[in-house]
Amino acid sequence: MRTLGAVLESVESGTVTITCGFDEGLTQQHGLFHGGVVASLVDVACGYAALSVMPADREVLTVEFTIHFLKPAKTERLIAVGQVVQAGRTLTVCEGSVFDATRTRVLARMTTTMMAVAATPAWH
Amino acid sequence: MRTLGAVLESVESGTVTITCGFDEGLTQQHGLFHGGVVASLVDVACGYAALSVMPADREVLTVEFTIHFLKPAKTERLIAVGQVVQAGRTLTVCEGSVFDATRTRVLARMTTTMMAVAATPAWH
Amino acid sequence: MRTLGAVLESVESGTVTITCGFDEGLTQQHGLFHGGVVASLVDVACGYAALSVMPADREVLTVEFTIHFLKPAKTERLIAVGQVVQAGRTLTVCEGSVFDATRTRVLARMTTTMMAVAATPAWH
Amino acid sequence: MRTLGAVLESVESGTVTITCGFDEGLTQQHGLFHGGVVASLVDVACGYAALSVMPADREVLTVEFTIHFLKPAKTERLIAVGQVVQAGRTLTVCEGSVFDATRTRVLARMTTTMMAVAATPAWH
Repeated sequence: MRTLGAVLESVESGTVTITCGFDEGLTQQHGLFHGGVVASLVDVACGYAALSVMPADREVLTVEFTIHFLKPAKTERLIAVGQVVQAGRTLTVCEGSVFDATRTRVLARMTTTMMAVAATPAWH
Repeated sequence: MRTLGAVLESVESGTVTITCGFDEGLTQQHGLFHGGVVASLVDVACGYAALSVMPADREVLTVEFTIHFLKPAKTERLIAVGQVVQAGRTLTVCEGSVFDATRTRVLARMTTTMMAVAATPAWH
Repeated sequence: MRTLGAVLESVESGTVTITCGFDEGLTQQHGLFHGGVVASLVDVACGYAALSVMPADREVLTVEFTIHFLKPAKTERLIAVGQVVQAGRTLTVCEGSVFDATRTRVLARMTTTMMAVAATPAWH
Repeated sequence: MRTLGAVLESVESGTVTITCGFDEGLTQQHGLFHGGVVASLVDVACGYAALSVMPADREVLTVEFTIHFLKPAKTERLIAVGQVVQAGRTLTVCEGSVFDATRTRVLARMTTTMMAVAATPAWH
């Protein structure tokens, strides 16, 4: 979060929004946000979304995610929204969207499987 | 690459290796490399692998990728290897592995679709 | 489509719905629809959705898809809806949902990359 | 399995091979095996591979899978091989390959997350 300069904008039960302002260290060869930054941001948003519906003594691990890059990430600010689509005792599936600064263009879409683990982490 | 402190270790036709040393800015709550860092690194390795089999006037865009996190990324150094599994005129499919510093443990596996674009980028 | 006994319910520009009634040949060990049937149905729905926004001389190939199974497919009838989320000249990204017969429960979610090819198919 | 006419060729610990002969009911518009058939077959192979490393009182559910179609499935017989790449108490990650009848061409690649459940199935 700090390395990305990301900011937690809002947390509701099952929906979390994180934003990230433009910085030269986060771009690729054409001055766009790097795909890895886009993916990291929405992975974090999905992780917090999953956490928001889990009991307090749980932590969350990303089991896997898939991301589709839909448009070039040419914007002043990325807005990543993570949402729970299916919450289970062990696994939670989330979907995430990355918008540009105007929140009108969807730049990327993610689907991810998150796993609840005890606060002292064991691995799946 | 610079933000990650990543180093291009080797480039062969269809196979590229990139490494990344441990740094506190790249870790999550348990002192492991963050999933987004792991994903970014192997995405870049796969992108270069795809590029290594394309004509010189092409650039590469990540259309999508899927990553499965297999083991906790507890290591001094990540070693990411990207490999071309199917090269086409427009699309190239790559698979990537992320190893720990000993190169014996596979921490994550990626599959990705890369697209060749003209050196002045148009978008798919 | 015939092997599945699937029916094309509706075709709008960018959105296609296909349904499939319960049949013992399509189930797994617990009398639920098999995951492969669920995936096939929504892959077809996404393919037709992509085709619905392409020029008439194009055909569509599935480059890749990801499917998350959210709930057990215990229903009389599967309803699969495919929708275009990003249409490009070469690639089209679609998302699909599979509902139960009541259309209230989402059983599975798919994201897929489709490729437009000339009506006499070349391969990517 | 029956609907596909699939045959279980071999089961070793962590690796399962299933084959499926050509049949007109399993093809798409160009006389190739349909993508859904290819996906179903390798999903089943991966599921059995996961099951082969689980305790006897467990069953297996597919949480999600991703499949990349690499070459047109123009062959007399599909050979699907599923392999465990990471086995955990709850989750098992498998990778699968689909070969043509000569076993020399890889037609598709899958990665999947499988979940162990009690023999009387609860859902994740």
